[in-house]
Amino acid sequence: MPLKTSWVDSANSADTDFPLNNLPYGVFDDGQGARMGVAIGDFVLDVAKVDHGLSPDLFAAPEWNAVMAAGPKVWGALRERLTLLLSDQAYRGAVEPHLVAQSDARLLMPFRVSEYTDFYAGKHHAVNVGTMFRGAENALPPNWLSIPIGYNGRASSVVVSGTPVKRPLGQLKAPDAELPEFGPSKRFDLELEFGAIVGSPSDGMVSVEQADDMIFGYVLLNDWSARDIQAWEYQPLGPFQAKATATTISPWIVTKAALEPFRTSTPERERPLLPYLQEPGPMIYDIALEVALAPEGKDETVIAQSNYSHMYYSAAQQLCHHTTSGCAMRVGDLLGSGTISGPEPDSRGSLLELSWGGKEPLTLGTGETRSFLEDGDTLTLRGHATGDGYRIGFGDCTGTILPAGPIPDWAK
Amino acid sequence: MPLKTSWVDSANSADTDFPLNNLPYGVFDDGQGARMGVAIGDFVLDVAKVDHGLSPDLFAAPEWNAVMAAGPKVWGALRERLTLLLSDQAYRGAVEPHLVAQSDARLLMPFRVSEYTDFYAGKHHAVNVGTMFRGAENALPPNWLSIPIGYNGRASSVVVSGTPVKRPLGQLKAPDAELPEFGPSKRFDLELEFGAIVGSPSDGMVSVEQADDMIFGYVLLNDWSARDIQAWEYQPLGPFQAKATATTISPWIVTKAALEPFRTSTPERERPLLPYLQEPGPMIYDIALEVALAPEGKDETVIAQSNYSHMYYSAAQQLCHHTTSGCAMRVGDLLGSGTISGPEPDSRGSLLELSWGGKEPLTLGTGETRSFLEDGDTLTLRGHATGDGYRIGFGDCTGTILPAGPIPDWAK
Repeated sequence: MPLKTSWVDSANSADTDFPLNNLPYGVFDDGQGARMGVAIGDFVLDVAKVDHGLSPDLFAAPEWNAVMAAGPKVWGALRERLTLLLSDQAYRGAVEPHLVAQSDARLLMPFRVSEYTDFYAGKHHAVNVGTMFRGAENALPPNWLSIPIGYNGRASSVVVSGTPVKRPLGQLKAPDAELPEFGPSKRFDLELEFGAIVGSPSDGMVSVEQADDMIFGYVLLNDWSARDIQAWEYQPLGPFQAKATATTISPWIVTKAALEPFRTSTPERERPLLPYLQEPGPMIYDIALEVALAPEGKDETVIAQSNYSHMYYSAAQQLCHHTTSGCAMRVGDLLGSGTISGPEPDSRGSLLELSWGGKEPLTLGTGETRSFLEDGDTLTLRGHATGDGYRIGFGDCTGTILPAGPIPDWAK
Repeated sequence: MPLKTSWVDSANSADTDFPLNNLPYGVFDDGQGARMGVAIGDFVLDVAKVDHGLSPDLFAAPEWNAVMAAGPKVWGALRERLTLLLSDQAYRGAVEPHLVAQSDARLLMPFRVSEYTDFYAGKHHAVNVGTMFRGAENALPPNWLSIPIGYNGRASSVVVSGTPVKRPLGQLKAPDAELPEFGPSKRFDLELEFGAIVGSPSDGMVSVEQADDMIFGYVLLNDWSARDIQAWEYQPLGPFQAKATATTISPWIVTKAALEPFRTSTPERERPLLPYLQEPGPMIYDIALEVALAPEGKDETVIAQSNYSHMYYSAAQQLCHHTTSGCAMRVGDLLGSGTISGPEPDSRGSLLELSWGGKEPLTLGTGETRSFLEDGDTLTLRGHATGDGYRIGFGDCTGTILPAGPIPDWAK
């Protein structure tokens, strides 16, 4: 599919993340209150103000949940209408007054997260972490090639790009210590992930095909992780406080419709999947991803480059598996993909892998080294799909590490 | 504290679960719509209709979340006002018309669950399960005496007492099989738990004392668990679909105020707790609990008797620990205690323990045996605290097992 042209000039550049082909959904505030917006070139469209053809109730609250709940027909109708409004000169006069410069807009959480589930679907990541923790022979757990392994995360931890992230306190136990101590995490890390947003609810088991239909769109996702808290707490019931500090998402929901041209297949299976997990067609996307780290006041270094298509399980497979037990899914549920590491050393999506557990510190362009994150570091995830003369972007997914809060007197 | 007497005669019986000392909060429907109610003797008070002295906004939706969000002063004022209205004859004429017989009322979810966290704070349970899975020497994980181990559960799984529970489908792998199959769980189980409801939000770390102040009340909780799904899926990230079928809670929220006289201390510590987890006073409650199992169409057998005071960690300690990483807590968060097993074989709070992994099936009063739950079985949890001439009850927490749904063609 070629670039669709818009009367918004900046949307026709090959460099913009937001051509007419994209039309991602967000929430913005330009000083006049939080509203629902659609990115187009260098602007945000104040969508409730234009003749969108839908019930105004869908735009009453500054969040996209009501539009999601209205279902796939409404998703399609809105996209078609916005495409017309932003391409046909006949509408320019009515629509242009409702464009706000992105540089004047602060971006807020685009939707209300109902529940958050995080998966572990990157094979390179699972093998890397498994090799470090259990040795190369036992790297992949026995269930890994059969189950899209996941755990429930904490929805209250999800924040929008730009929100500072305070280094967590927690229980830590040094390998040679007998007892744990309470203090700031010393091994605070990022995880490069992709997030799928459930737009249609379900109550009972759904197929991979039905699950794909339920997905409204995607965001970039950084699953901040305290490796030292995790190492001490995670047996036998999994990660808990190690993952509850923050989960940063990119500000724009890129719709499934915008990503259609970039569908591709998950890797060949080493072990046949059970029938319920088999995919009726390509269910993953070719999306280039990068991670950049900037020490406080200094230039950033791109520390990893990866691609969403490395994942072994698609979001549709994960969502299908999530419903097998009868678990009800709701509008606004967020599914993290798991860390997206590629096969090469510089395509690893976490510092745990990039520094091989801290044993091989990374050297940044500034000459500094990093095993894990330091206070003042700014982490940025970026992603885009490349079309014929255009690209589909998500906006930066960024967060700056603040020092841990002081330990309260009652905790000393 | 002795029995407080009410002009509602049935509330003055030593046998009622709902004397004036209790005043638990629920949601009911007598055919005229869902409303907020307060149990008193054999009745439910239609609380929005009486002169409760608070803003009507707090009673606009059929759920107790708005009252919780109004904060502890409002919680105290409402309890004081209801005590006056239901004890002083002067109010009888105005209040009595708004009493609905409990036998005419269907009880609904008393509150909207924001997020659900389940803990693992029963030492007898942890030792029993650990012995079965890892041997007696490694029964307790090394972190268990230091951390209130928990994992995030699925809020959408929480249902009110009386909701049927469909046996889950899932991935199962027999110990001698090479590969998993997809089918109905054969080892479906209950877990006897207590649930604490967060009434006040937090954003940052809170002390045990502050955490206790944040708790609005308690319910009984059955954490239905598919042991065979769990055994295959839970490494390395913890239980997921095994716990997502349903989580049943009792219909009445018993307030922290009603339970004050029954506070008692958690057990002596084998290893000193870190300062942040130390309790400033008694934080657990003396509440007798029982589990009854009735095969379809037959009499029930009480299969276990336990007490909440067996727990090693209190809900206040669990909530404090939950906030250490900076995790925000919200109004309506639900914390499951973990399975409440006592030291004796007949005080074990799950069939996994009662039948010792299925090796020692239980014989019911009907002569039938059980290793795990069978279709048609009705499980009921009951709990009460015993005061001076009165008891504080929660109402039955019950669920009947329905057969698993048929496996869809696309999953065969």
